[in-house]
Amino acid sequence: MRIVKNTGAKIAAVLIAFLFQITVKAQTMNTNSNQNTTSVFPKGDLAPPEYFTGTAWVKTLVANDDTLTTIISNVVFEPGARNNWHIHPAGQILICTEGIGYFQEKGKAIQTLHAGDVVKILPGVEHWHGASHTSRFTHIAINVNTEKGVVNWLMPVTDVEYSNK
Amino acid sequence: MRIVKNTGAKIAAVLIAFLFQITVKAQTMNTNSNQNTTSVFPKGDLAPPEYFTGTAWVKTLVANDDTLTTIISNVVFEPGARNNWHIHPAGQILICTEGIGYFQEKGKAIQTLHAGDVVKILPGVEHWHGASHTSRFTHIAINVNTEKGVVNWLMPVTDVEYSNK
Repeated sequence: MRIVKNTGAKIAAVLIAFLFQITVKAQTMNTNSNQNTTSVFPKGDLAPPEYFTGTAWVKTLVANDDTLTTIISNVVFEPGARNNWHIHPAGQILICTEGIGYFQEKGKAIQTLHAGDVVKILPGVEHWHGASHTSRFTHIAINVNTEKGVVNWLMPVTDVEYSNK
Repeated sequence: MRIVKNTGAKIAAVLIAFLFQITVKAQTMNTNSNQNTTSVFPKGDLAPPEYFTGTAWVKTLVANDDTLTTIISNVVFEPGARNNWHIHPAGQILICTEGIGYFQEKGKAIQTLHAGDVVKILPGVEHWHGASHTSRFTHIAINVNTEKGVVNWLMPVTDVEYSNK
């Protein structure tokens, strides 16, 4: 019976070691997958605090030029972060790629955004966008027809306005 | 000792069950992470065979309109798939989001593309893009200034041209 006891204990010990290994592997896989989803693009530079509340990161993917007249940026908002109210004279398109975000046009309710959502913002429409209270949010922002203007920044989105969700 | 034996066996049984659960969880996490990276957008429709070689999928994210004058599509190329030689009268921007792809301008060498790469295609430049031989490839394609035209399709990329990589 001693042997049996030892065998049982050894099986348990081996399984514990294997279990630990699997658990570590699972965590590694999760980390890798997060890197895949969050790091298709580098985080870029801190968003300018005069136009953003909280922490956000902007990576320019396409700089403006006279031929394509388009600016494309990848923007990562930490939870609670958002940009000021603003207007795009030529409009903008948001392609949401990760997390949960908010979008609001002046006078309308805050909308919740998820990965895969696409938002068309028409020229002249006052609005803001950012992360939800508890989740990071990433979108690609596409400013088209930049010869007509890019952005006019307005007032910050107050905590009261943001909490209206 | 009978108790000890039973305890050892029970520990082993519980650990085996727990181990199985963890393994299943790890697989689920992996599946989910793949979904995140490959399925931010639905696959969409099969790309038209008259303009593509092999299997590709096109999901329109933004349809054309007179205000934003922009078309955005998510395109998934299965390994070996590519579009025909073609020209965009107003240019196009590719944002590579997954896998390994190829891009070639007429008269130049084939370039390899990876997730995170961005390609600016100038108006009038004859070119093609697609997956590498062995990896699926996904990009977001952005046609700007569509009032100047969207695409002029030309000849298929032959196996000889494609294999020149």
